[in-house]
Amino acid sequence: MSESTKSVTRSDGRSLDQLRPVSITRHWLDHAEGSCLIEAGRTRVLVAASVTEGVPRWRRGSGLGWVTSEYEMLPRATNTRNDRESRRGKISGRTHEISRLIGRSLRAVIDYKALGENTIVVDADVLQADGGTRTASITGAYVALHDAVEWLRERGSLAGEPLTGSVSAISVGIVKGVPMLDLAYDEDSTADVDMNIVATGTGDFVEVQGTAEGATFDRKLLGRLLDLADKGNRELTDLQQRVIAAADGKAQL
Amino acid sequence: MSESTKSVTRSDGRSLDQLRPVSITRHWLDHAEGSCLIEAGRTRVLVAASVTEGVPRWRRGSGLGWVTSEYEMLPRATNTRNDRESRRGKISGRTHEISRLIGRSLRAVIDYKALGENTIVVDADVLQADGGTRTASITGAYVALHDAVEWLRERGSLAGEPLTGSVSAISVGIVKGVPMLDLAYDEDSTADVDMNIVATGTGDFVEVQGTAEGATFDRKLLGRLLDLADKGNRELTDLQQRVIAAADGKAQL
Amino acid sequence: MSESTKSVTRSDGRSLDQLRPVSITRHWLDHAEGSCLIEAGRTRVLVAASVTEGVPRWRRGSGLGWVTSEYEMLPRATNTRNDRESRRGKISGRTHEISRLIGRSLRAVIDYKALGENTIVVDADVLQADGGTRTASITGAYVALHDAVEWLRERGSLAGEPLTGSVSAISVGIVKGVPMLDLAYDEDSTADVDMNIVATGTGDFVEVQGTAEGATFDRKLLGRLLDLADKGNRELTDLQQRVIAAADGKAQL
Amino acid sequence: MSESTKSVTRSDGRSLDQLRPVSITRHWLDHAEGSCLIEAGRTRVLVAASVTEGVPRWRRGSGLGWVTSEYEMLPRATNTRNDRESRRGKISGRTHEISRLIGRSLRAVIDYKALGENTIVVDADVLQADGGTRTASITGAYVALHDAVEWLRERGSLAGEPLTGSVSAISVGIVKGVPMLDLAYDEDSTADVDMNIVATGTGDFVEVQGTAEGATFDRKLLGRLLDLADKGNRELTDLQQRVIAAADGKAQL
Amino acid sequence: MSESTKSVTRSDGRSLDQLRPVSITRHWLDHAEGSCLIEAGRTRVLVAASVTEGVPRWRRGSGLGWVTSEYEMLPRATNTRNDRESRRGKISGRTHEISRLIGRSLRAVIDYKALGENTIVVDADVLQADGGTRTASITGAYVALHDAVEWLRERGSLAGEPLTGSVSAISVGIVKGVPMLDLAYDEDSTADVDMNIVATGTGDFVEVQGTAEGATFDRKLLGRLLDLADKGNRELTDLQQRVIAAADGKAQL
Amino acid sequence: MSESTKSVTRSDGRSLDQLRPVSITRHWLDHAEGSCLIEAGRTRVLVAASVTEGVPRWRRGSGLGWVTSEYEMLPRATNTRNDRESRRGKISGRTHEISRLIGRSLRAVIDYKALGENTIVVDADVLQADGGTRTASITGAYVALHDAVEWLRERGSLAGEPLTGSVSAISVGIVKGVPMLDLAYDEDSTADVDMNIVATGTGDFVEVQGTAEGATFDRKLLGRLLDLADKGNRELTDLQQRVIAAADGKAQL
Repeated sequence: MSESTKSVTRSDGRSLDQLRPVSITRHWLDHAEGSCLIEAGRTRVLVAASVTEGVPRWRRGSGLGWVTSEYEMLPRATNTRNDRESRRGKISGRTHEISRLIGRSLRAVIDYKALGENTIVVDADVLQADGGTRTASITGAYVALHDAVEWLRERGSLAGEPLTGSVSAISVGIVKGVPMLDLAYDEDSTADVDMNIVATGTGDFVEVQGTAEGATFDRKLLGRLLDLADKGNRELTDLQQRVIAAADGKAQL
Repeated sequence: MSESTKSVTRSDGRSLDQLRPVSITRHWLDHAEGSCLIEAGRTRVLVAASVTEGVPRWRRGSGLGWVTSEYEMLPRATNTRNDRESRRGKISGRTHEISRLIGRSLRAVIDYKALGENTIVVDADVLQADGGTRTASITGAYVALHDAVEWLRERGSLAGEPLTGSVSAISVGIVKGVPMLDLAYDEDSTADVDMNIVATGTGDFVEVQGTAEGATFDRKLLGRLLDLADKGNRELTDLQQRVIAAADGKAQL
Repeated sequence: MSESTKSVTRSDGRSLDQLRPVSITRHWLDHAEGSCLIEAGRTRVLVAASVTEGVPRWRRGSGLGWVTSEYEMLPRATNTRNDRESRRGKISGRTHEISRLIGRSLRAVIDYKALGENTIVVDADVLQADGGTRTASITGAYVALHDAVEWLRERGSLAGEPLTGSVSAISVGIVKGVPMLDLAYDEDSTADVDMNIVATGTGDFVEVQGTAEGATFDRKLLGRLLDLADKGNRELTDLQQRVIAAADGKAQL
Repeated sequence: MSESTKSVTRSDGRSLDQLRPVSITRHWLDHAEGSCLIEAGRTRVLVAASVTEGVPRWRRGSGLGWVTSEYEMLPRATNTRNDRESRRGKISGRTHEISRLIGRSLRAVIDYKALGENTIVVDADVLQADGGTRTASITGAYVALHDAVEWLRERGSLAGEPLTGSVSAISVGIVKGVPMLDLAYDEDSTADVDMNIVATGTGDFVEVQGTAEGATFDRKLLGRLLDLADKGNRELTDLQQRVIAAADGKAQL
Repeated sequence: MSESTKSVTRSDGRSLDQLRPVSITRHWLDHAEGSCLIEAGRTRVLVAASVTEGVPRWRRGSGLGWVTSEYEMLPRATNTRNDRESRRGKISGRTHEISRLIGRSLRAVIDYKALGENTIVVDADVLQADGGTRTASITGAYVALHDAVEWLRERGSLAGEPLTGSVSAISVGIVKGVPMLDLAYDEDSTADVDMNIVATGTGDFVEVQGTAEGATFDRKLLGRLLDLADKGNRELTDLQQRVIAAADGKAQL
Repeated sequence: MSESTKSVTRSDGRSLDQLRPVSITRHWLDHAEGSCLIEAGRTRVLVAASVTEGVPRWRRGSGLGWVTSEYEMLPRATNTRNDRESRRGKISGRTHEISRLIGRSLRAVIDYKALGENTIVVDADVLQADGGTRTASITGAYVALHDAVEWLRERGSLAGEPLTGSVSAISVGIVKGVPMLDLAYDEDSTADVDMNIVATGTGDFVEVQGTAEGATFDRKLLGRLLDLADKGNRELTDLQQRVIAAADGKAQL
């Protein structure tokens, strides 16, 4: 495949293993304990991490904290307008799925004991969508979570270090037979296989979700996709570290 | 009252008849036919105008167009997080009220016949709230509506000039006995009277909504509030005209 | 305008500043602590004030009472049948808006401290609608509220006089260019401007809500509308006082 | 049992086989094609019959009409206030059950073919409840239905005589071991057996619904209950005939 | 009628007073405290009785237990697929009605005091439907309830004997003028009168629900239907006793 | 790891790469075009495939068919009773996720063109749950889908062979550091990694979903899990082929 793919041209001119330009701006909101705007190509997600003292009823008295997440798209994030889920009176399966995925991903790097009985809710609202909204949400959510944890630390509300590592996510897929990194919407909508890989900063898997949408895939292609995702997640991890260290709260890739 | 009010100090140092800094950025979204980000002090509203061919069923075959609006706040727009209306499964009375107000305000400057059988839905999503979100939504919505109308004009889909004028809105109120313009959240939450005035660019009223929330008010105080609103709406009208003319789609006050 | 309007004929023969016949019958219900049937022309609203000891959770322990309201129309109150909101599974924006308006209007004349930790819920159910249902609801709601307060007083459950005044409401509007008082449905549906004025018995404003629905309006027309509303509200205040004093609980205008 | 029951005293002094005072006022509403207010003791139900041309989708083109019904209680119809079903967002099983019962009862005396492709929706809204609301609803519903049918006849919209008879309903029950007719709320809430009998004007059964709520019952007691119901329904049938013939649309028992 | 009915042939060859084959298999589920699969002809209902310590809030501290029930059909229980009620977002009136009927029927044979503050929820889920699902649910529910009570007894959680008797149910009806027992779906859908009789093991009535669906019925026909139901319920009572005594938890009729 | 794992004992005595006993009974329902009961250990899922002519609105006229799925659990499928989703008025994220997964898995082996404009809805209702309900649902769903396709074939309603292969699914996971096949509930609830692999009969991936729930995992462990799943899916494929060929519609593993 290495020969044949050399000649493949992506619609935005990227190479097969290249991320779109990504930028993160921390402290985008004044009220939230942690927040950032993450932009990956034309995809733009506003992430807010809200801290509340105490935990849900089923967890009270355990000494353990809780982290959860909600994801939603603005109606005109997409090419054509979608009805609001609040108006339709029910939340779509897709929205549920992604909200749960973000929450699980963040919880993979949280030490509940060190967090103490505090709850952090991370809202990821897609202002504009061009593929990869769930993975951008996770990558940005880690940054907002980090800042919310710092906010708790400054108040002396922590029982230790709640963050056991960092977490990021990226999509990979097979388009017209060719494996590639970070699918934009036009690629995603014609992909044979679509995969989202959530990984820690040390490269271990948190979540592996691959779906055949036209052609099934074998073990070898899976390996190639995991290689691409690994490259992408390492670059995103680097970006996360830079933006957290940045004096002006901004960094880009 | 002119003497006594000279000594009143607003929390952000403004004079009683002074607007907060306002800026409008057009084309903030890539997909929407019209859009802008309007910022008034710390209040930030993302407005998107979406065009669809055709009109709702009850209006088909009439030759007339339709304009409507939906308003919503992101969960962490405010000081403390609010549950999403989509999760609660019902839309609050406040959200309904404001959505209807924005829609009526825009329809006041629309000639349905010239619009032809096209529908424009204007979404106003509050990214951050610090008072005056409904009036900022209306002021921004006019700009997004204008651009959506231009988009239709370029396609040759109009039967004339649908915009019969411009529309803007501002809040006024009585705080500790003193009438003032453009209340921020800390002022609004302690106001005796809270009023929202929607006006056309020529200064005529579209909507007058005043509510006593602690002390009732008489005819003279009402007059003073209308004077303040008139000043604010004239300045906002000027800003709207400048941003529509601006080559870079940006203007501020 | 005075000359030209002389020749205007209203569909029911009223003069421009004349209310429709209004009657109030107190104690229309046997169970409710306060209740009345208010009829204004063909509009008929059944109002019930229900007292419960205690206040909503967010107000407990404050020593303060609470007053709220819910408004709804029976399905065949109108010319053609409307689906029930309970069947549609959601409450319309209009119903929300009016419920909130009635509640705010009543709270404007309530001293929460004197009410003590008691809650009064005022239900306004429109049995038949012919314009002005929200204003008739407010005018009747004050009477039912008054009786519920008396009921509490007789039980020794009050910490003082909770009613700081009376409140009534009336609609005014501009129909075919002519300002007039108390619009019936056929007038309301063709009005250029529709306005509802809620005022205390002393003539101060509680709520001013004017909406341009076809033509905008200027300061002078606004003044004329406020004059008409003032006349209407004074007459309604007089009726409220008479019905409260009436041995048989009935009075009319 | 006849000896022993002689000494039983009902709370309102009635004999065991005596109905409460019942009155029916036709044309209580101005807009509805048929309507009445039916009062049975303190129970008061407002019934409206609404005619629309055409039938539900599943019945179109059949040449047959349709009759259906919706029942609901105002929140303060009862001793203590109930939350509105529209606010709770769901309709109770009880409301569903009674709505369906009224609909079935009316359809038992309707010839769909003669009705033609017209729909009649009968709304029964309980303004005040003191037991027997469902049976009063049915008895009143027949009168409203009759007037709606007359309205159609006058317009020449009927294909024959849609009413094949009349229908009325009454409750019977066993209270402290004693069978009695037309239970008021205080009797109903302590009844061992509660039964509702819907019958045609000729005395045939349309619906027989008996429920043991504390003690079960045998064939003999069932027979006694059916006798009582027969007496009640005959009197109600007579009242229906009188009110339909009454020049002033009023009759009482 | 006895002559004419001799020649009636039922679609499955049964005589007019004959039940379909019925079988009950106890302990069909591993987790539930009581459960059975009841099959009546092609109708198959899975019943589970779940015990929880404690009672609903409104009953706490009373020393009394509670029994309730929920009924639902799988989407493809019927000839053509029905949408799930969970997807439609609302429960049909029919489902509500039947759930309530099952609950009332079971409560007729429960001594709340002996049950103590325990709650038993009986779920009846129709896996396949061919008429008589509500009556089969009740007959099976008694068996599951019995086993749940035994489970409580073994734990020493009872304050006496909560079951005051047994309860079963069967349908009867008039099809083409002929009274018959235990209607299958094809009979039920063409019946003139449809009746469900819930009775105790001693033959007393718990619930009598008869509905005319095309032709009304008189006292004599009612008597004939009650005779048929009595025969059916006696046979079902016998089956219940046998299955409860059966070493392998199985019995059939 | 191979040495250390030799000594691991699973709660039910299985070896690490051993499936639980699985049995499939086809034609479990009389009405559905395809159906089966699949049992895997104590997990029991009833699957029904329903055929309807035509396709959803958005697909009409395309000549293509459609396959979709809905998954739900009975309230007492689990150790303790869960509230019904129909009563709670909303479907959980988990139910949505699994319904979508089953649908995607089936669509991976469907040729829409050959199916023609027919829709097959596959309902998977969990009667009893002990881990692996989503994978058992997929494995059984293929069998029911196969029979529904045969039903269409017999009617001459197909435009070719819609099934391009078979599909099955199995769970794998890492429990206390040890990779194992087909987790029962007690294993699943303590797993560090939980993975579901959907594969075609030829061993290609349709869906790969792995989630770290306590410890993250690396590439080598992922490989080991995929090996185990491959073994499981091959055995399930064999079972599917046998049950489809079985004269009595039954087969087990």
